[in-house]
Amino acid sequence: MPSVKIGIIGAGSAVFSLRLVSDLCKTPALYGSLVTLMDIDEERLEAVYILAKRYVEEVGAELKFEKTKNLEDAIIDADFVINTAMVGGHTYLEKVRQISEKYGYYRGIDAQEFNMVSDYYTFSNYNQLKYFVEIAKKIEKLSPNAWYLQAANPVFEGTTLVTRTSSIKAVGFCHGHLALKEVFDTLGLEHNKVDWQVAGVNHGIWLNRFIYEGKSAYEKLNTWIEENSHNWKPLHPFNDQLSSAAIDMYKFHGVLPVGDTVRNASWRYHKNLETKKKWYGEPWGGADSEIGWKWYQETLGKITDITKKIAKFLIENPKAKFSDIKEIFGQEAKDNELLQEMEKILDPEQKSEEQHIPFVESIVTGKKERFVVNIPNRRIIPAVENDVVVEVPAIVDSEGIHPEKIEPMLPERVIKYYLKPRIMRMEMAVETFLTGDIDIIKELLYRDPRTQNDGQVEKVLEEILSLPENEEMRKHYLKK
Amino acid sequence: MPSVKIGIIGAGSAVFSLRLVSDLCKTPALYGSLVTLMDIDEERLEAVYILAKRYVEEVGAELKFEKTKNLEDAIIDADFVINTAMVGGHTYLEKVRQISEKYGYYRGIDAQEFNMVSDYYTFSNYNQLKYFVEIAKKIEKLSPNAWYLQAANPVFEGTTLVTRTSSIKAVGFCHGHLALKEVFDTLGLEHNKVDWQVAGVNHGIWLNRFIYEGKSAYEKLNTWIEENSHNWKPLHPFNDQLSSAAIDMYKFHGVLPVGDTVRNASWRYHKNLETKKKWYGEPWGGADSEIGWKWYQETLGKITDITKKIAKFLIENPKAKFSDIKEIFGQEAKDNELLQEMEKILDPEQKSEEQHIPFVESIVTGKKERFVVNIPNRRIIPAVENDVVVEVPAIVDSEGIHPEKIEPMLPERVIKYYLKPRIMRMEMAVETFLTGDIDIIKELLYRDPRTQNDGQVEKVLEEILSLPENEEMRKHYLKK
Repeated sequence: MPSVKIGIIGAGSAVFSLRLVSDLCKTPALYGSLVTLMDIDEERLEAVYILAKRYVEEVGAELKFEKTKNLEDAIIDADFVINTAMVGGHTYLEKVRQISEKYGYYRGIDAQEFNMVSDYYTFSNYNQLKYFVEIAKKIEKLSPNAWYLQAANPVFEGTTLVTRTSSIKAVGFCHGHLALKEVFDTLGLEHNKVDWQVAGVNHGIWLNRFIYEGKSAYEKLNTWIEENSHNWKPLHPFNDQLSSAAIDMYKFHGVLPVGDTVRNASWRYHKNLETKKKWYGEPWGGADSEIGWKWYQETLGKITDITKKIAKFLIENPKAKFSDIKEIFGQEAKDNELLQEMEKILDPEQKSEEQHIPFVESIVTGKKERFVVNIPNRRIIPAVENDVVVEVPAIVDSEGIHPEKIEPMLPERVIKYYLKPRIMRMEMAVETFLTGDIDIIKELLYRDPRTQNDGQVEKVLEEILSLPENEEMRKHYLKK
Repeated sequence: MPSVKIGIIGAGSAVFSLRLVSDLCKTPALYGSLVTLMDIDEERLEAVYILAKRYVEEVGAELKFEKTKNLEDAIIDADFVINTAMVGGHTYLEKVRQISEKYGYYRGIDAQEFNMVSDYYTFSNYNQLKYFVEIAKKIEKLSPNAWYLQAANPVFEGTTLVTRTSSIKAVGFCHGHLALKEVFDTLGLEHNKVDWQVAGVNHGIWLNRFIYEGKSAYEKLNTWIEENSHNWKPLHPFNDQLSSAAIDMYKFHGVLPVGDTVRNASWRYHKNLETKKKWYGEPWGGADSEIGWKWYQETLGKITDITKKIAKFLIENPKAKFSDIKEIFGQEAKDNELLQEMEKILDPEQKSEEQHIPFVESIVTGKKERFVVNIPNRRIIPAVENDVVVEVPAIVDSEGIHPEKIEPMLPERVIKYYLKPRIMRMEMAVETFLTGDIDIIKELLYRDPRTQNDGQVEKVLEEILSLPENEEMRKHYLKK
């Protein structure tokens, strides 16, 4: 059996790391592999390391673990490097958002038409983009044959930047397309009988093909919209796949926006909380409202707390088992995602829905599988430049990634009125990062409907660049 | 000598028609030709017809004239059809602007980022676009070998629409590049020694090449900006080639915007009168402010009035000469453009700077000349789609139009951040016209910074579609 080394950067993100570890345990073809967990947060790293080792021991999988605070350790000899790190964490994002809102930029200066996801910073996220490039350069030098799996956001800007500035094998992953399952379930379609395809850019993908038993399934969707959509209510802030915003975008573009694409609409749906409630549903107004985002932060906080408790419990009780956790912490975990996660992680039949480990398996063993990947366009969508990273389905095997032919092609409206302006913003972010020319961010903000005058632009940028963590960004951006 | 038939549609525009007639008189190679003046305004047509005939007689040129109210008469047997008609005239444009402003759309719903020229309507100009297509279809049927010269705005949308929907030989003309002369004069450059090139789309062209005596002339421009630009003051509302807006656009994009491109910037320069004054100069705030535009309308009115008077005078005085006009009407005309125009028209050495007649001469006689033309892109600017009409220099001869290689290519910033969003708006306008789907205009307005809510969009469109002249537009746009 081939054994590989997988480096996980930002492994302190417990839920994500445990999903990968659990997936690995359910992939005997990868037994014997070494997983190097890397994070700069020692406490979180330690917790994940303990959880991972205990879990593997308990389920009897053959996997080895290392932990390190050193990036290079996760890269040297690696066959796969998975990056999920968020430099500066949510704290940084919230700081920038707070400054932005003080100057009239509701939801932050990074919230832009077609890029409204609240932690998808592209302009004020210099340290994050810089880390992507640093990792890629180290892979190029230390493990030039390794695959780089971009899991950290912004996946669109990040994967485009990495593929433009390095020669490594890189691919970006997102789970946005999984939101389709809600559509299939709502319409009563058996998942494995649906012939579907999505295409676009990360957080901007559209259901170009939707066929069921030989017929367009869009007819079923239209019927549901007409008869039932008025009864739709979100279950949580992120539940927006069949929201009024999604349906409205579908009606204009002719195909359904999928996953976070629904969040990434125009200001029409995002002007303020009231507007957001109208389009994404009560009471939250979607994930990207002040209410929905607070819910998300609280949920994240609860998961972090309980993860720490579980790790502490396992350390203090060397004979305790993972399978005891649910019983012990179940009551406490019921308000958050962790219980569900734990159930999935503990279920030997059920893999997480993250694509990373199955991708590794397909590359290593040659087992052909279908993934939705972020890769340079190279004529997949002819109207898009070849060096722009697109998100499309592909078959993966030991030869690599074989993108599917997109058929039917995305409607002109999606390409011309949605993808192109979104791509322009990506280009502006990438150019800002590469050149350090802050005039590009200024130009972006001059065109922003929230900007009332030039002074507002100067002030908000000055305050963001004055944050201590932005010292290097400041130097780079103001060097002209 | 080859004699041709030239149809002029919208010939009631006296200044434009007289320029063409005067140019023809100074082009002996086209003597013997027939000019068919066509307009639906009988009074204006009659005035121009008289002026043209008297002028030709007086200067002893050999040209024949016809006048007609019937479009087909101007097309049948024509070798060239020049369209300068503005369907509905300025009255329609002002009506739409007034309605728009009532609902919060300063300068009208057609004023959009990168399309701020006050009579360049693309979305609410259904009758105008329809007329372009009607003319093209009639040429296709009646005179399939004729050249169609698109002089009427919107040249960008119009020429793109005509070349996409018909097989005729079509070319769009604008005189925007002539504004370069002010730059050359200001920098003390001998015009014929400047090696220059512009490229882009109509009202969105940029000085990609600017060389003088073997060296970049941009250095001279930079020196002028540093030392003298603070002293710059506009001579009239349209005098903006070296305005603060132009310099600011140049600094960001790396090349100078030329002609009406300076008007076609972002909302940053156009938010309100105060902003416009800052960027385009006092007292008018450029041509597209409420003050500058009023100046333009008054100037147009004066020209119309005096043209009528001159025509009346010539009719009543059969022996009066054109050369008397200056003396008789000089005092009255001194406040407007007509006197200057008359001087040019009467000067046997001086042609107008319109490109139409020289273009006709080059096609007819094979005399190679350089023009700035609007033609389908076909790889001239590789990053732009081939079926988008671009404005570029070309050599014209009896074989047709030979576009120059654009060298150096336009900077990425011009292509990605300026041309592409402008092209998107053109595509939205053309699709709206072709499909009659008003949802595209709505989508445009949802993205418009002036839009506060959906109701505003509904109301402004409803009132525009309720204008009596928009009955057909209403039917077409609401048929879905």
